[in-house]
Amino acid sequence: MKATLIHGERDIRLEDVPNPVLHAETDAIVRVVAACVCGSDLWPYRGISPTTEPHRIGHEFVGIVEEVGSAVANVNVGDFVIAPFYFCDNTCINCRNGVSTSCLNGGWWGSDDRDGKFVDGAQGERVRVPLADGTLVATPEVPDDAQVPHLLALADVMGTGHHAAVSAGVIKGSTVVVVGDGAVGLCAVLAAHRLGASRIVAMSRHADRQAIAREFGATDIVSERGDDGVAKVKELLDGIGADCVLECVGTKESMDQAIRSARPGGMVGYVGVPAGGPELPIRTLFSNNVGVRGGVAPVRGYVEELLPEVLAGTLAPGRVFDLDLPLSDVAEAYAAMDERRATKVLLRP
Amino acid sequence: MKATLIHGERDIRLEDVPNPVLHAETDAIVRVVAACVCGSDLWPYRGISPTTEPHRIGHEFVGIVEEVGSAVANVNVGDFVIAPFYFCDNTCINCRNGVSTSCLNGGWWGSDDRDGKFVDGAQGERVRVPLADGTLVATPEVPDDAQVPHLLALADVMGTGHHAAVSAGVIKGSTVVVVGDGAVGLCAVLAAHRLGASRIVAMSRHADRQAIAREFGATDIVSERGDDGVAKVKELLDGIGADCVLECVGTKESMDQAIRSARPGGMVGYVGVPAGGPELPIRTLFSNNVGVRGGVAPVRGYVEELLPEVLAGTLAPGRVFDLDLPLSDVAEAYAAMDERRATKVLLRP
Repeated sequence: MKATLIHGERDIRLEDVPNPVLHAETDAIVRVVAACVCGSDLWPYRGISPTTEPHRIGHEFVGIVEEVGSAVANVNVGDFVIAPFYFCDNTCINCRNGVSTSCLNGGWWGSDDRDGKFVDGAQGERVRVPLADGTLVATPEVPDDAQVPHLLALADVMGTGHHAAVSAGVIKGSTVVVVGDGAVGLCAVLAAHRLGASRIVAMSRHADRQAIAREFGATDIVSERGDDGVAKVKELLDGIGADCVLECVGTKESMDQAIRSARPGGMVGYVGVPAGGPELPIRTLFSNNVGVRGGVAPVRGYVEELLPEVLAGTLAPGRVFDLDLPLSDVAEAYAAMDERRATKVLLRP
Repeated sequence: MKATLIHGERDIRLEDVPNPVLHAETDAIVRVVAACVCGSDLWPYRGISPTTEPHRIGHEFVGIVEEVGSAVANVNVGDFVIAPFYFCDNTCINCRNGVSTSCLNGGWWGSDDRDGKFVDGAQGERVRVPLADGTLVATPEVPDDAQVPHLLALADVMGTGHHAAVSAGVIKGSTVVVVGDGAVGLCAVLAAHRLGASRIVAMSRHADRQAIAREFGATDIVSERGDDGVAKVKELLDGIGADCVLECVGTKESMDQAIRSARPGGMVGYVGVPAGGPELPIRTLFSNNVGVRGGVAPVRGYVEELLPEVLAGTLAPGRVFDLDLPLSDVAEAYAAMDERRATKVLLRP
């Protein structure tokens, strides 16, 4: 089959690799219907995280179950399934605590499972799914093509934006600032809106993304950054800042923006993968009682929470995909996101 | 009148100072019935925070109102009052948000108010109280002497321990670790117990403090620190750590202990004044979804919440005072706490 490998900085190739086979009786093989490129895939692409040897890449996919191990009970051959951006048993104590990203038996696409067996990346034609019963969520029926982007968004970006909102404690009536206008930031706007935020300030400098943010429920746009951005946010929000700030980038600058945009006693929910820092400024947090909570989003649990609304058509996060390419154009997909020609690219094998 | 000044490292003196007078119509003058020494007073005492010139010190007191300005409506001459460790109007937007330590018009004992008028420290005979209506909470009647330590604890340590528990999200059934066995740490144990924690692990190496922790509701004591302490905590708590960790010290080591004692998805509530750092390790927090929330405790609001239980005798935080001295022995009070001969010293003018 064909699958994507990263060889180094700005070197993405689609190559022939072995078809996956079942290794454990809890495995399934899924034929990928749609995958995508994540903002975090751009860290190795840009060379910020170095690539020491070529390896598979991609961690978001939906597809059709082609084969299941003898112990798999929750999904069947022919099911359309959503995979979170990691695999998990969904039964261990951490999963039961709602933190399936810390599953005691889980792991990551494109690396080895706990048995030392390789697990495929998601930007390919097929994926061996360990712990299929815990990992996969099947839809009641095979969806039409138009629903695919919305379902694929549940694999990562929508659940991750939702996690930012949940971590920041967004409730009905909250004032919210969203830092970051990538796919996750836009989904965070949508999540805050869904949770009943009364005011949602999207920080964005790009007209196309501002438009999506507005569609998703942003009430205000702030294009300034740094001190000017903080001043503008405070001007909009009673002079003090936001109840909840959703940090969806992961840089030193974005986290600083987030912390300073929170009101005293406010909360920063952060999901941007920290790119080389920063350490959080504890004295600033302490003196203002600003809390910080978040991390690798446990989207597996959120798939079940959000799926009914996606199927009903009342939640449409797939709007963040603004470029649709065949898998054979995967290198162009990375380039388009790297050069900000696209917010998020959907790939069809 | 007599009041305490710090002149430098380990140099505490009781001196004659002018009696306070009313400056604003919202002021009150309170005669101090009891004050105390705070763990944070030890930072300048030990020279960790340098003292550049002699200044008043002390920020916890209860007393009797002697005089009120013409605009004071909530307290009357003769009332017994509890003062939080800061003054605040209790009406601004931050106060209404529950963060009275960020009051837009508030300030700190022993420094100037917003009008540039000096406000007395609490380790003295009398204190001018700005914004008396917002700052002071009067008891229904003048309490017996035996109730004074419990009421004084509401001025800081009990409210601060409670803030650690609230910030960490302690609820009925939570598993809790408390880092720090000073007066605040012990009050945090009591607060966690009051909020219904099912398991409370107190980290303490001192037999006398372990005993108070047990009295306050600790179910387990861990005397190990560092890696051994983390291992012991995990052994006690399902192999994963605590739902909620209450950090009540403020050093790099204690915060590290706290973060590593939390389970994936757990929360650290911290109230230890950060002593020169550390910056928080964001990648550790991110990968485990461990949140951090806390800061300068807004105890003013907690006084009203906790006072009825103290008056009813069902909440007795005053047990943390294990040495009672006249104000004239204030230098000995500092020395006793510095040398760990006392957990917390009560001072009577």
